[in-house]
Order: sequence, then structure tokens, then C-alpha cells
Amino acid sequence: MHITQILEPIFIILAIIAIWFAISNFISVKRVLIGRPMRTAELNAQHNKLIWFIALPILSADLYSSVAYGPESGMTELVGLGPSAKWMIIPITTATVVLLIILILSYIMGILAYPNGGGAYAIAKDNFKQKWVSLIACSSLLVDYVLTVAVSVSAAIEAVSSAYPVVAPYETIMAIVCVFILLVVNLRGVAESAKILAWPTIGFAVCMLLLIFTGLFNEVQHGFVQKATPPFGSVPKGLSVLLILKAFSSACSALTGIETISNAVPVFRDPKQKNAIKTYIALGVVTSITLLGFAFHLYVKGITPNPNNTMLSQLTELYFGHGIIYQLIIWFTFIVLILAANSTFTGFSQLAAIVAKDGFLPRGLTNRGDRLGYSNGIIALAATASILIIAFQAHTNALIPLYAIGVFLSFSIAQFGLVKRWKRIKGPHWKTKLTINIVGAIVTSIVAIIFGVTKFTSGAWIVLIIIPILIFFSLSIYRHYEDVADELRIDLKTIHPKANQVISLVLVSGVHRVVNSTLSFAKSITDDPLAVYIGFDDTSIDRMEKKWEEWGSPCRLVTLKSKYRSVLEPLIRLIRIIEERKAEDDHIQIIIPQFISRKWWHNLLHNQTAILLRIWLLKHKDIVITTVPYHLKK
Amino acid sequence: MHITQILEPIFIILAIIAIWFAISNFISVKRVLIGRPMRTAELNAQHNKLIWFIALPILSADLYSSVAYGPESGMTELVGLGPSAKWMIIPITTATVVLLIILILSYIMGILAYPNGGGAYAIAKDNFKQKWVSLIACSSLLVDYVLTVAVSVSAAIEAVSSAYPVVAPYETIMAIVCVFILLVVNLRGVAESAKILAWPTIGFAVCMLLLIFTGLFNEVQHGFVQKATPPFGSVPKGLSVLLILKAFSSACSALTGIETISNAVPVFRDPKQKNAIKTYIALGVVTSITLLGFAFHLYVKGITPNPNNTMLSQLTELYFGHGIIYQLIIWFTFIVLILAANSTFTGFSQLAAIVAKDGFLPRGLTNRGDRLGYSNGIIALAATASILIIAFQAHTNALIPLYAIGVFLSFSIAQFGLVKRWKRIKGPHWKTKLTINIVGAIVTSIVAIIFGVTKFTSGAWIVLIIIPILIFFSLSIYRHYEDVADELRIDLKTIHPKANQVISLVLVSGVHRVVNSTLSFAKSITDDPLAVYIGFDDTSIDRMEKKWEEWGSPCRLVTLKSKYRSVLEPLIRLIRIIEERKAEDDHIQIIIPQFISRKWWHNLLHNQTAILLRIWLLKHKDIVITTVPYHLKK
Repeated sequence: MHITQILEPIFIILAIIAIWFAISNFISVKRVLIGRPMRTAELNAQHNKLIWFIALPILSADLYSSVAYGPESGMTELVGLGPSAKWMIIPITTATVVLLIILILSYIMGILAYPNGGGAYAIAKDNFKQKWVSLIACSSLLVDYVLTVAVSVSAAIEAVSSAYPVVAPYETIMAIVCVFILLVVNLRGVAESAKILAWPTIGFAVCMLLLIFTGLFNEVQHGFVQKATPPFGSVPKGLSVLLILKAFSSACSALTGIETISNAVPVFRDPKQKNAIKTYIALGVVTSITLLGFAFHLYVKGITPNPNNTMLSQLTELYFGHGIIYQLIIWFTFIVLILAANSTFTGFSQLAAIVAKDGFLPRGLTNRGDRLGYSNGIIALAATASILIIAFQAHTNALIPLYAIGVFLSFSIAQFGLVKRWKRIKGPHWKTKLTINIVGAIVTSIVAIIFGVTKFTSGAWIVLIIIPILIFFSLSIYRHYEDVADELRIDLKTIHPKANQVISLVLVSGVHRVVNSTLSFAKSITDDPLAVYIGFDDTSIDRMEKKWEEWGSPCRLVTLKSKYRSVLEPLIRLIRIIEERKAEDDHIQIIIPQFISRKWWHNLLHNQTAILLRIWLLKHKDIVITTVPYHLKK
Repeated sequence: MHITQILEPIFIILAIIAIWFAISNFISVKRVLIGRPMRTAELNAQHNKLIWFIALPILSADLYSSVAYGPESGMTELVGLGPSAKWMIIPITTATVVLLIILILSYIMGILAYPNGGGAYAIAKDNFKQKWVSLIACSSLLVDYVLTVAVSVSAAIEAVSSAYPVVAPYETIMAIVCVFILLVVNLRGVAESAKILAWPTIGFAVCMLLLIFTGLFNEVQHGFVQKATPPFGSVPKGLSVLLILKAFSSACSALTGIETISNAVPVFRDPKQKNAIKTYIALGVVTSITLLGFAFHLYVKGITPNPNNTMLSQLTELYFGHGIIYQLIIWFTFIVLILAANSTFTGFSQLAAIVAKDGFLPRGLTNRGDRLGYSNGIIALAATASILIIAFQAHTNALIPLYAIGVFLSFSIAQFGLVKRWKRIKGPHWKTKLTINIVGAIVTSIVAIIFGVTKFTSGAWIVLIIIPILIFFSLSIYRHYEDVADELRIDLKTIHPKANQVISLVLVSGVHRVVNSTLSFAKSITDDPLAVYIGFDDTSIDRMEKKWEEWGSPCRLVTLKSKYRSVLEPLIRLIRIIEERKAEDDHIQIIIPQFISRKWWHNLLHNQTAILLRIWLLKHKDIVITTVPYHLKK
């Protein structure tokens, strides 16, 4: 037997103990992890408005970090055709940058239209009467937020395991740990706008620009065509339009996260709109330079995708070796990707809360937790992202085909919404704005269709199935809430609570202190309770009847025999008889004693029938259940 | 992305749906799997007494099936020394057979002493005053029963995967499926004595004897020393006493299950004792022949243990090729090993019920399920055996070192108990019986010590840690039950239930139909209920107060503001105030409305705070909780 085989059962036992400890000390564990609860009044105090050049790095982590995997997944599609296809990464990246510019222009129009911040869902809700349109926008965004967390965390872990291959076998478990840490951090409520989060993104951008200028310097020195540079412009065998589009749509995963700034307009310093627009332009410039420069150097150096070593890591190694700059870039990449996942938690839980408030998602998503974050949304995101990471074993390239369709679907809907708005409202320069949004709408729709078609078989179908399911459930949820509201509404004038007869049954298991205290309570609320004893054989019933008499028959006693050793079945028979005899509005109440042990494991030693009984009766019968606790002293 | 990666998320989703379906249709699923419930009165009707030669195969599945893995695990220990050590399997098997004979003689003494059947626990309880002695006997037996299931099922699966190597990667999952089927079968309650279970064991024994006589015939034809036969009697390098003992104790795993007949004396036809003894003798003869013959042929043919092909499978292939007889032997081996695991379910759950009745294990283990089996014990066995199988990945040879210590511990205790008994009671031929049991006691103790020492580092330590832990828990459980009984006992003359004041709080979340029905109930049991509204901000509180007035103030209303958005915290403050003012014996009652949805998933759409509130209050406060259900119509 290997040492690991000996250790495995020990680990299982330790894990079980840890889980038990966490459950039985839930409140204390929660306090340590999450921190003290915060008052509702503290909600609005913490928002300090941001200058635009501080807002830029904070709000761009999601978009800018995508450069770490976007070009790589484009190149991965091409590389199957051999090195002669590598040059095509340059036109593909150029197309991506053109798309980026169109998107930024469209989003600037969005900011002009909705200065208080408007996500795709808000724009769709404002401009389309049909509920399903806005539901497409929110469902696809929610799905994509889940994917953002899964993809960003997986890419972050891949960056680290490129530098330290020894950790490669543990990628999945490390990714899950990261998601758990993000969960805790977000339940604690580190605000997205915390200024400290600006620095890693700035650091990452500086490193990326340094990399690109080093590359340029290298190319000026050694020539733009080097020994490793593959031929340019050749048409490799097996090239097809489908493949080019596939590579293009993979590369477009670098454009996710672009909506963050338009959602966050209210956090900018005045003049908000102008500052937000400035930020968008600056972000566009920096991202374009990075994408184009990075892709060009990848081509010149003839870098090939390698599942164990990211292309960013390979390029950095070529220029700087395995020294400090390499370490800096790897760790900045890691942090920025984790920050991208982090900002998604806020985005997801806020969107879910807005949609839930409109009645399309469970209302629990609108509850603010101890630290004022929308805890349920945060937990739901962490759970679904973890499932994805486990199912795809933290492989970024396996997740990419599912990614970005949702974002582009919601982009298109927002654009079409804006088009409708400009036509309706008009206002200054409305024709220019309209034109921009028409172009945006057409381009994003085409891109969304390209995504769906080219990646359908490699995973996109999952998303295209899940989004309609989500919409279907959202509509059912909405209908259910409407139904319930209708059912509960009463006329305050005519309907009032009024007293009726109550028939109280007390379940007794013998004559002892617990039964005594339960009967005391029963006698306090009714003059004539009915004690019910259920025995499995005649001897136990005889014994009970005799003891009851000895006790001076404190109230009426009914004894029932259970042939099948079930407590429920004879009780239901008794209830049916009572139901037939009672008046329509009379209540039946069952009073059940409940042992409360001092140690949790003592619960295993006592019959928990009462709990199952309670659940069954509440679910199937119109019966009031009263539980009288008895706290054991030992 | 591979097809398996696409399928994996689908499987996860399907599994989740299946689990949900099973939970929400628990009763129907249970009916299909387990069958209709049976009356307590049906319990004694189904036992038909057995003729001894039908009882023999039924009761011997556990012992006789062990020949499939006993010699193999002995040989596995020897083979590290090279082929020159192989001859030692013959003296080791001979020693095992001698031990078998001693054990059978000892157990016949046990039958003479306890004609109504007496396991080690009953014998120990009858002869030792100290509780811990009988607890060692039962804990070690229970642990060994769990191991019997794990080992037998793993060995059964290994037999199949020797014949069909293609299934080898799925051994663990197949073993778990087998345990699940055994669980269902045993919850259905196929009685151990069902006569149909006799045939596979007879078939297996016939096959084994056929194998042995074919081997003998082969040796008469081709000589007892063949080309493949390793040298006999040589002392291989690196041989040590420890290694011989280790091989011996591994081979002794073939002796587990010997206690079955002595536990089952009541199922025999009269004269019970005589028939049971006859059965023991016949079993001893057949098992000895099989063990010795099998071991001898293994030696002659120079068979080497191979983790992918059992020695039984190898030997059968040599004699019969891959034809029908090979298939027959493989599948009989499989069925008999599964039957061995099956009979353990009865043994485990009956022993657990007896010990639980004495107060040393949770009382739930004495409950008979729908089909009269001790369901909780059956489920506990299946669960723990599954954990073992997963932890050891269904490798029989990894489990063997943990195995059989428990059995030999309980054997020794039973023998010592019988020794005490003969000294005390005497009776006819008591000196012979005493001598046999003294020999048995000494031999089994020595074997138990050999087991503990030689296999300690390879896994036995786990068992030697678990048994004392079980004993410690058994004693704690006993003490807890005694404490509770003391605490609950009342004097029937002096203590009687008496009525007191009840302060009833009704939690209201607004003015609607549910609140109306809850208040109606409250007014039915008390004249002056107190409605409690908890608001998160001043507006909602003002609105509630206004609406309450509009409704004509059906009762007193208290509004509480929760700064931290928690319902519990302001409620606890209110309860504290009431507790200070009320008289000692007065009850506080909290009446909580509970939505009951028609579809299970609708529960996710409504606040489940009431459930958490109920759990917290019951656990920490002496407060009566009343739940008034409101069944939604849609």
C-alpha cells in the first residue's frame, strides 16, 4: 500500500471533521471570513467619485486582461494548418481592433443616451415592450459573467503554471481555491472602486507596453523578418472561410468586459459623461496598441501555442529570459486576470438583483448580505463558475468556444435598443448617433452569428441551449410571482381575522418529563387537548394506557396501533376522521415535543421522526404544527 | 474539445435532475425499489427451517468464497522473494487448514453451549461483567463486516475484470454499483435463508472441485514436477520469520465468515444442534480440500500473482482454456463473492440492532424498515463499505491487510468467554470442551497478534485505531442514554401538567391573505396575540403601520427596525424583554406563517427565513414555535 493510499482515508476523515466544524460553528466561521455585519445606512457612504485616469485601470481590468488569452486562442485555431498560416494572426487581430473601435463608439453613444449608466438589460427594457428581448440581454450577460470568471481564473492559473510547470497537475483545484477566495472577498465586500485595485492593472499595462517596445527595438536591431518568422501572405493548404472566422471569433474573446465603463458612469467625477467618454477613448488606444503589437511580435518570433506554456510567457522568455521582468509579467498577468474575475462578481450580482427586483429571478437575489453585497448572487456565481471549471478541468481553450457569444448577443440588443431610441427621441446630432449605432448593431449581430455558427459544435451549443432555458424560467418565475400576488391580495374592508375552534393533538411517546412539559403548554392554550400515543404492538399500548391512568389521566388519550411501524400512517387516519367531523374553518393543530441535545452528535441518538413528520404534514395537510422544545441538561 | 468533455457537463446536469427527481418523488421511487411495506406480524412467518445440506451452501458463501482471494494474497506476500519462495504456499496453506479445523471445533463447542445461536458479542456479554470486553467483540466484528463487503465486492469485480480486461478501468464504479444493488436488495429484504441462494454456492464448489480433480489428473499424467514447477524446499534469500507470518496472516483472510453457522443455529431443522454441527464438519472438509488442492496446483503450475488477472483465472485458463468452463468458474466466483457480501448485510444489521438495543449504538439501528429489515444498519454498512472501496479504489490486495484482524479478535474473545463458561457451568464432557476452547483461545489470540504486528504498517493500524474509537463512542452513547433516562424520569404522584400564561407573537410581513389566516389561528388560541413586523427602513415601517390601521387594527402591532437587514436580531431583542417581564412558568410562543408551494422549485422563489429562524430559536431559546401553513393554489 502506498503512502498516498494510507493518507487518503485520513484526508477524507479530516475533511469531514472540518465541514462539521464549519457547519456547527457557522456564525463564528462566518464572522472570521466575512467580517462584522454593516448597517444599511453605510451603503452610500463608501462611494468616492473617481478621476478618469484612476477609473481607467480600475474599470478596464476585465477588458484589458483579455489580451492575455485572446490572441492565443485565435492562433490556436490557425496552427492546425502549419506555420504557413501564422501570418494570418495579423489581419485577424486588425479586424478585432476595428471591431473594438466600433464597439467603443457604440458604447459612447450609450453613455450619451443613459448618463446614469445603462447596461444592455436597462437599454432593452427601456426600448422594447416585449419582455423576452430584455431577458435575452440579461440571460446572455449572466451566462457570460459566469464564463468570465471561469475563463479568467483558468487563464490566471495557466499563467502561473507556465512559469512553474510543477503545479500544472493541480490547475483545477487551484482554480477552485481562487474562486473560493474571490467568493469570500466579495462577501466581505471589497468595493470594485477601491483605489488600490488600480495598481496591478497599471503594472500589467506598463509591462505589456514594455514588452511591445522591447520587441520593436529588437525588430529594429535584428530586422522585421527574422530566422523564426514564418512566411507572410501564403495561402496554406486546407484554409477555409470557416476556419478564418473561427480564429477571428476566438480572438474576439479579447473584447469581453467592454461594457464595464458604461455600467459605471455614476462612479465618475463630474462631468461624468465626458470623463467616462475620455476613459473609453484612452482604453481603446491602449488596448489597440497592445493587441496589435503583441500579435505582430508573436508572428515575427514564430511563436507556437503550447498548452503547457502560454504564448505571452514564451515571448517574454525570449526577450527577457527567466529573470525578474519575466516574473513581474507572469504575476501581473495572474493578478489582473483575478481582478477581472473579481469585478465580474459585482457586475453579476448587481445585474441579478436588478432583474430579480423586476420579478424575473428569485427575489432572494435582491437581499443584501451582512456586508451589503448581494450575497446570494455572489454565491450563485461562485458555484456555477466552479462547476464549469471542474467540468472543463480549468482548460481556458476548452472554455473559450462557449465564451463571448453571450456578450455579443447582449451588445447587439443594446445597439438595436439605442437605434430605436434615437429614432424616437432624436435630440442633437441624432443622425450621427443613429448611424453609429446602426453600424454597431449590424456588426455585433454578424459577429454573434459568426460565433454561434463557427463554434457551435465545439461548445457554443451549450450556451445556445442554456440561454432559452434561462428565459423560459425567468418568464415562469415572473408568472408565479404575479399569481401569488393575485392570490394573496385581500380586501381590507371585508376580510378580517376571526377566531375559530382549534382541535389540538399532542403526540406523546410515554410518560416522562418531556411529555409533561408539552402537555403543560397544550393545557395553557386549550382546555381539552387530545394526547395521541402510537404503539407498534399491543403490549406497549397496554403499558401506556395503564401508566396514563396511574398518572391520573391528565387529558383524553387516544392509542393507535401501527401495523407497519410507521408513525405517519395511523396519524393520517386519525386526521382524516377529525377532518370529516370538524367545521370548515376549524383548525387542526398537532403539538410535537422536540428534544434539543447539547452536543450535535447526540441528535443522531434520538429519533428524528418528528422532523420528517412535520415536513410531511405541512406539505400535504392544512394542519398547524407546534413544536415544543425540551432542552436536555446533559 | 473532446466528445467526453462535451458529454461531461451533460452527465452532471442529468445526474442533478435524477437526484432531484428521486428526492421529490421519494415515496414512489422507494416503492419501486423497495416494494410495499410489510406488517410486523409477517416477521416470523417467513422462516422455513432448513435441512442441513441446504443450509450448508447458504451459510457457507462467506467462508467458502474466501478461497478466491485467500491463497492469492498469501502468494502475493511471498512472490517478492522470487520463484524459489513459491513452494512455501503449501506449508502456509496447510497451517491455515489446521487453524480452520481448530476454529470449527471451537465453534462446535459454541453451538453446544448456546443452542439458540450465539455470536461473539452474546457469548462475551454472558460471560464477562466488564462492558468493554463485549464491546471489543462487537466493534471488531462490525468493522470486519464492513471490510467483508468491501473485500468480497472488490474481489468479485476483479474476477470479472480478469476475464474481461476492458472493464478494468471501471472497477471502482462497478464495485459501488454492486454495493448499491446489494443495498436495494437488502432493503427489499430477500431473506438470507432464501433457498435459491444455495445454487450458486453449490455451482462454485462443484467448479472448484472439478478444477482440483482436473489438476490432479493432469499431474498424474504429466508428473507432479512439471516444467513450470519452482524448486521445493529451498530457502530463498531475504526470507524472514516476519515475512512467513505475514504471508500466513494474508492467507488466513480465507477463514473469515466461519462464524455464520453458529449465529444461525435457529434456522436449522430439528435436531438443530446436531444438524448445525454436521454442517460445520461438511464445510470443514470441503473447504480444506479446496484450499489445499488449489494451493498445490498453483505451486505445480508455478502461477505468479498478477494484479490484472487473478490466480484462479490463470489456473483455470491453463486447464480449460478460455471456453465455457472458464466462463462458468469466473461467473460463479463473481456470484458467490457477491452472495458473501450479501449475507454480511444481514449479519451486520442484526448485530448492530442487538447492540443498539443494549444502548451502545444509536437506537435508530433497532428500527425495522418497511420490509422488516433493520434498514438503518443496512444503509450504514453500504455507506461505509462504499467509502472504503473508493478510498482503496477496489483493490482487494490493498484491503486485505485491514481485514480479518477484527474477526480473529472477536474469535479470541468468544473462546475465552466459553472457557469461563465451562469452568463455571461444567456439564457433560466439560473437560474436553474446556480443553478445545483453551486451545482455540490461545491459537486465535496468537493469530490476532501476528495479524496486528505483521500487517500493522500496511493498513492494520487503521483498524487498531478505529476499534478503540468505536468502543469509546459506544460507552459515551450508553452514558448519554442513561443520563437522558435519569433526566426524563418523573414521579407520577407529584408532577402533573398544568396550564400557564402563554405570550403569543405572530410574525407578519404585511397585510395579505397569509397574514389573515395566521392571525385567525392566533386569535383562536389566545385573546390577545401580538403581531410583530420587522422592517429594514422607516418607509416600510410607516407604510405597514398605516395599512394596519386601515385594516382596523385586528390586534396589537409592534414594529421593529432592523439596521442590519436581519430578522433574527431585532426579534431576539424583543424576546429578551418579554423573558424579563414574564412569570417563570409562562410560555413564549412564536407563530410563523409558512408558504407551501405546489412545485418544489417554487420554494427557491420565496424567502426561507422562517425555516432558519425556527431552527435557531428552537436550539437557543425555550420558545414554542408554531408553523401555520398556507398552501398556494397555483
